[in-house]
Amino acid sequence: MVKRYLQVMPLDEVFSLLSHEFPCIPSTETIPLEAATGRITAGPIFGTYSVPEIHLAAMDGIAVASADTRGASEQHPVTLDRAARVNTGNVVPPGFDAVIMIEDVWEADGKYIIRKSAGPWQHVRPAGEDLAESEMVMPSRHRIRPYETGALATYGIIELGVITVRIGLVPTGSELVAAGTRPAPGQVVESNTVMAKAMLEAAGARCTRYPFVEDRPEKICDAIAAACRDNDMVIVSAGSSAGTKDYTADVIAGLGKVLVHGIATKPGKPAIIGKVDKKPVFGLPGYPLSAITVIRELVLPFLRNYGLFVPEPQVIRAVVTSALPKEIGSDEFVQCTLGKVGDRWTISPQSKGAGVQMSAVRANAYIKVPRDSEGFNAGDMVDARLLVPWQEAEHALLITGSHDPVLDHLADLLRPGGVSLVSTHVGSMGGIIALKKNECHAAPMHLLSPDGTYNTGDIRKYLPKTEVDLICIAGRQQGIVSRDGLALRDLRGRMFINRQKGSGTRMLLDYELKKAGIDPSSIPGYEREVTTHIAVALAVKSGEADAGMCVYSAAKALGLPFVPVAQERYELAIRREHRKDPRISMLIEAVRSTAFGEILKRLGGYDTTETGAQRSAE
Amino acid sequence: MVKRYLQVMPLDEVFSLLSHEFPCIPSTETIPLEAATGRITAGPIFGTYSVPEIHLAAMDGIAVASADTRGASEQHPVTLDRAARVNTGNVVPPGFDAVIMIEDVWEADGKYIIRKSAGPWQHVRPAGEDLAESEMVMPSRHRIRPYETGALATYGIIELGVITVRIGLVPTGSELVAAGTRPAPGQVVESNTVMAKAMLEAAGARCTRYPFVEDRPEKICDAIAAACRDNDMVIVSAGSSAGTKDYTADVIAGLGKVLVHGIATKPGKPAIIGKVDKKPVFGLPGYPLSAITVIRELVLPFLRNYGLFVPEPQVIRAVVTSALPKEIGSDEFVQCTLGKVGDRWTISPQSKGAGVQMSAVRANAYIKVPRDSEGFNAGDMVDARLLVPWQEAEHALLITGSHDPVLDHLADLLRPGGVSLVSTHVGSMGGIIALKKNECHAAPMHLLSPDGTYNTGDIRKYLPKTEVDLICIAGRQQGIVSRDGLALRDLRGRMFINRQKGSGTRMLLDYELKKAGIDPSSIPGYEREVTTHIAVALAVKSGEADAGMCVYSAAKALGLPFVPVAQERYELAIRREHRKDPRISMLIEAVRSTAFGEILKRLGGYDTTETGAQRSAE
Repeated sequence: MVKRYLQVMPLDEVFSLLSHEFPCIPSTETIPLEAATGRITAGPIFGTYSVPEIHLAAMDGIAVASADTRGASEQHPVTLDRAARVNTGNVVPPGFDAVIMIEDVWEADGKYIIRKSAGPWQHVRPAGEDLAESEMVMPSRHRIRPYETGALATYGIIELGVITVRIGLVPTGSELVAAGTRPAPGQVVESNTVMAKAMLEAAGARCTRYPFVEDRPEKICDAIAAACRDNDMVIVSAGSSAGTKDYTADVIAGLGKVLVHGIATKPGKPAIIGKVDKKPVFGLPGYPLSAITVIRELVLPFLRNYGLFVPEPQVIRAVVTSALPKEIGSDEFVQCTLGKVGDRWTISPQSKGAGVQMSAVRANAYIKVPRDSEGFNAGDMVDARLLVPWQEAEHALLITGSHDPVLDHLADLLRPGGVSLVSTHVGSMGGIIALKKNECHAAPMHLLSPDGTYNTGDIRKYLPKTEVDLICIAGRQQGIVSRDGLALRDLRGRMFINRQKGSGTRMLLDYELKKAGIDPSSIPGYEREVTTHIAVALAVKSGEADAGMCVYSAAKALGLPFVPVAQERYELAIRREHRKDPRISMLIEAVRSTAFGEILKRLGGYDTTETGAQRSAE
Repeated sequence: MVKRYLQVMPLDEVFSLLSHEFPCIPSTETIPLEAATGRITAGPIFGTYSVPEIHLAAMDGIAVASADTRGASEQHPVTLDRAARVNTGNVVPPGFDAVIMIEDVWEADGKYIIRKSAGPWQHVRPAGEDLAESEMVMPSRHRIRPYETGALATYGIIELGVITVRIGLVPTGSELVAAGTRPAPGQVVESNTVMAKAMLEAAGARCTRYPFVEDRPEKICDAIAAACRDNDMVIVSAGSSAGTKDYTADVIAGLGKVLVHGIATKPGKPAIIGKVDKKPVFGLPGYPLSAITVIRELVLPFLRNYGLFVPEPQVIRAVVTSALPKEIGSDEFVQCTLGKVGDRWTISPQSKGAGVQMSAVRANAYIKVPRDSEGFNAGDMVDARLLVPWQEAEHALLITGSHDPVLDHLADLLRPGGVSLVSTHVGSMGGIIALKKNECHAAPMHLLSPDGTYNTGDIRKYLPKTEVDLICIAGRQQGIVSRDGLALRDLRGRMFINRQKGSGTRMLLDYELKKAGIDPSSIPGYEREVTTHIAVALAVKSGEADAGMCVYSAAKALGLPFVPVAQERYELAIRREHRKDPRISMLIEAVRSTAFGEILKRLGGYDTTETGAQRSAE
């Protein structure tokens, strides 16, 4: 029998077990005041002197004896025999008990004249007004806000004790190389402890990244034992699964005890929780999205037990645009893109591949599909958990349809204006459907009709009653990418890499093959599908395929020969009802900008004659 | 004529002017990846190699040729002649095009047996799946989230350009001393630039604090000119008002131009906006709360023009517990305490003194009373702008009534459990009223009835139909504090400092004076009121008064003689309807804890016999 997981444990049981097994006492460290923002006090802080220690003027003006001012009025101004010019913060000289604002004072013959009497202690800051000696400034476990550093400085607190959790991060794996080194085949850049450090330190933990440990149990054992000595908690990256080189669980068992192997989450299942020297030791799965999930859903919430502050994500109710089927038994976490189309928040799941870190970069929200749920249907209302501030999600511009690298450049042009362009790659037909369901702001497309026109035919067919405008991004060259300059006519018998059905490129290919009288079945690999231009070019570059069809910019980016097949009209379809949305205006402005024109020229393969042109799809 | 302000300018006009006068181009700095969290990209970031660069196993299992697996099923297991054991992340060896999960593999006689066929490319991560060479990872102006450091590491990005605004902070004032030095009379700890640095750097600015500059125009001039050379923006602390030593405006006028002197906010009015070398120069008022307001309401929002991220405060609608009258003309910002009593959010304004930094420490929210408003009446619904995370505000425990230093210690005991005790000092009668209006969770009080009993009499009088419980904090000694051991009978003719009307201490004093046959008019200073025990003791210590009445702990804290007058019952009144609130349970638990008993003994002057005892006020 091949080695298998222990029974997986649901998250709520994991948290009960953690609370039961570990007392969770934080460490304390003394830090200078300048580093105090966001940190949490370890004990109460008391003032050691009063502020102010003596009566001070609270206004710019003159210090007076209030008795001298009696009876002053507009009708009966009083000229003062004694008074002292004081500025805000000056000591009120002995004999005086009030301050009159400079705005209420007139001067004549070197004396002050007033037209209003002053009450005793008027505009005087009495000693101890702000803080009295021995008073408590802040209790324990108070999270210091940036502006409070000023108060602490005033009260003489220049260093303070704050809580932390010392966490040792142990990266394991013989395949690891440090970030900055280009990995050879089979090597992997160690990124999980880089990420864990950033996520955990944002919550106030203090992390130490240990050197890479090769996949040998005795080395891993030494590393974990050393990390346990110097920290309150240890996280071992990778080796937590059940592969032939997954030693983490056995090593933890040897040093102490494995409490849990396998948690009921997806991604994140292969996590380990152990106990060594009474300290928690977590085994983190190697896949980046699994590691993110385990840190976000397990380790960070657990840090709350130590008194650290870990905010709950903000939640927005949104309509999910595609089905999320799921088997009962695990909490499932799905990276998504969220935005507000009209008055309605919509959320689209991203690729589920646990190795696709870009899906976490592109995501601005995620969905938790609960353990006892069978998932969601398209159109269900779900809780969207935000990964960006609410304001940023509200300004997201949802672009759903056919992908082109220029969309990323439009995103780059729009961001300084406060708009986050979020693109979901579902091909031109996917874009039409999103437009029909009103689940995106704009759908980029290049759909060839049998009559040789682009886009209007399918829009009229699928959205017959909806007013839709088309903004031309560019005339775009599609062609054959290869390592040796193949053309369309050379494809027979060569290994091909195709785009997915429904994509404009696939339709164009089929149209051109038919025109040229080439039978798809004569092309090996015709059925192998990828979803972006650059993936086609990459398959060709890596030797996996001999040819594919893509846009010029993708071939150029990878330095591959490109033989043009056709020029197509790549347009943005926009419902007219959204035309007044400022995000849409900014998008159109960006398409029409000089900067964008220059980008198109630099990338190559785009005809800018029609760029920015608008037409109705009716 | 005395020097006066220029015309004050409303905030919206100030922002228009700032946008018109300054192009707001941020600086760029290169930082290591480890420092990237929260920073904002200066330009787009591209991948320089594909991830992965070659096909990899996406699961632990065996790599197979999918063609070899055809027809495998439960009924017809297939024994594979060729296969390779792979762990997640291993290269899929040439000749293989699929991976079968280890869970679906059996072993016999050194060969693998499968019961399900594998499709081509199943569980294989194709080259470029995550990121393709030349693809854009992030656009410009993207705010880097902690977990994204992992993706950046994977893509080989170990340093990156981010935007910042270089801000020079120039503290002026001959009275300044550095934090950590106890200020002599008339000296002030320089805290505004400490605070400004923390607030502005939290938004991604890079601040340089310059040495203190004495109040001499030529020195200030040199300092501002130097700061302008090395920064994108300069903030001059203090000297912005119209006092005799307020040189900032004149100096800015000499170096460039004063655009605004005086903004229509309260606090914060004496702010200056100038332009030197085409750069914005702000004059910050010296009062800490004025400085906080100008930074929060003017400088931080202005940083958005440079592309920095400054979150809007979260807003909660709440009932304001006391009137906030105001003249039309200025936006007024009031520090408040906010909490949820039952289902209703209530918000109480704090002391308005611009020098009381503790009010900003105590506040968990603030109210903006708009320029064109005449203020709010008690009971009005207002926008509470949060100064803490929403969850923390929701766990605030509102304690309103008579103050005693032990309340701060209760706060300290409660905070580790996640409850923020927020106390508002309004005296015992103020507490009764807050309890009647259901605007607090508990009201600490010590109200003597003519029959010699405590608290129940007034609760029955003011809340005749409400079920109220009383939890005893302690029997508390009240007595005369003085520098030379005065007793109650010695008060005639000595300068007194009194507590405010409605406070329990005031009532007790009046009761005891009457009993002793002492006429209040025989005591000079009887009419001078302060609002806390420690303020009474401090007035005595500073020589401002000869005697006052307070609790023992306040006298002890300042090392002053104390002659007991009476022991009173200091109790927490709690509406029975809130008794199931977990915050209340935790409060009562804290009062009854051993730790609290020890604190009472250590502070002295408390009789703990009845501590924690509960009785009904009916």
